[in-house]
Amino acid sequence: MNAHIIIVAAGSGSRFGSVLPKQYCLLAGRPVLMHSIERMRSAMPGAGITLVISGAMVDLWRGLCAEHGFRSPRIVFGGATRSESVRNALFSLDGDYDIILVHDGARPLVDVACVKEVVAAMSDEDVDGAIPAVPVTDSLRVVRSDGTSGTVNRTCYRAVQTPQAFRADKLIKAYSSVKDSFSDDASLMEQSGYNRIVLTVGSPANIKITNPMDIAIAEHILSMKQG
Amino acid sequence: MNAHIIIVAAGSGSRFGSVLPKQYCLLAGRPVLMHSIERMRSAMPGAGITLVISGAMVDLWRGLCAEHGFRSPRIVFGGATRSESVRNALFSLDGDYDIILVHDGARPLVDVACVKEVVAAMSDEDVDGAIPAVPVTDSLRVVRSDGTSGTVNRTCYRAVQTPQAFRADKLIKAYSSVKDSFSDDASLMEQSGYNRIVLTVGSPANIKITNPMDIAIAEHILSMKQG
Repeated sequence: MNAHIIIVAAGSGSRFGSVLPKQYCLLAGRPVLMHSIERMRSAMPGAGITLVISGAMVDLWRGLCAEHGFRSPRIVFGGATRSESVRNALFSLDGDYDIILVHDGARPLVDVACVKEVVAAMSDEDVDGAIPAVPVTDSLRVVRSDGTSGTVNRTCYRAVQTPQAFRADKLIKAYSSVKDSFSDDASLMEQSGYNRIVLTVGSPANIKITNPMDIAIAEHILSMKQG
Repeated sequence: MNAHIIIVAAGSGSRFGSVLPKQYCLLAGRPVLMHSIERMRSAMPGAGITLVISGAMVDLWRGLCAEHGFRSPRIVFGGATRSESVRNALFSLDGDYDIILVHDGARPLVDVACVKEVVAAMSDEDVDGAIPAVPVTDSLRVVRSDGTSGTVNRTCYRAVQTPQAFRADKLIKAYSSVKDSFSDDASLMEQSGYNRIVLTVGSPANIKITNPMDIAIAEHILSMKQG
């Protein structure tokens, strides 16, 4: 399968509480985003990568690449929302791809096995998309519109990770028709009726850097794996 | 308010994948459970504590307490499920309490602020229970009975932590009538119609030790806080 990878890193990291968006913060001496790119390169050496970053961050990123001797993938500018950023990347592609993988730039610890699982699931022609998922460990509550909340059965829920893999033609069609923003691409695909989404085995280590604490956690996971 | 604390630590830790249940594993040199007890003691120095552990683990626990010079709370034996364990503790109480807090023994990093928030929320007489919650950072999917899965809006969900505080009389009534097992006590309260449950601000650091990796993460969070 001819695959292309989109790495989305255009967020401002408003939840992170730092001036510098989380994807540019150092993790074991290198920006988080470089880890994410490197991991995807290792998992799929043959696939091209499009990196989506904020236009305001291009000079910073180029400076970081020079400083760390890092070869950047081709760059596309992000939009106001995550979905706009993915759309910009998709519409910039001129190759003919079978599948497209979308990965969060803030998931620097994704492992080869996790990527291979989603790609393997796409070999079934009937599948529209394949996404890594892990059980939810905390109890969950749903907050209703009136502000009250209620219990839900957590065993029926999965926490979704990236990379998420999709049929290229369907992902492009979905992004052509749906204008709302979603927190992941599987949601947007389903909004377009492409709902044959398969869950694959994610990894507890494939965390998303969200809070400053997560940088330290990621460093610790990295040191464990090397030990 | 006259408060009592129940710390639930009777699980076998089947998801943890270790012979020793997670609550007895060492975290910064001491069993996880000792941290959980110590944190609750610091947050509510005046409150009594009932500790629920498996009957099979009592000798191990007493040995650990002797080894670490740790004063154990009163012990009640656990049941086959988490809810049975809480029920055993509740029905063993002979004091007259206004509120009861239930805390997971596998949450060793709960902080004073988090405990004080749930207790403060209980000062509103109309509230049946108060539970700490944090936003869900991963995208969520619900798995249907036919094996397919679908998107849910994660902004409508919260991940629930402990300690959870409840009116003592209502919690006891709920446990007297409901026989199913639940992953948290708020769910069981609601099953009995006590659905005025308030969400308070939880802490990202208040993780539940679920995977072996979580021990290392908890050690790292501990070292950051001391640094």
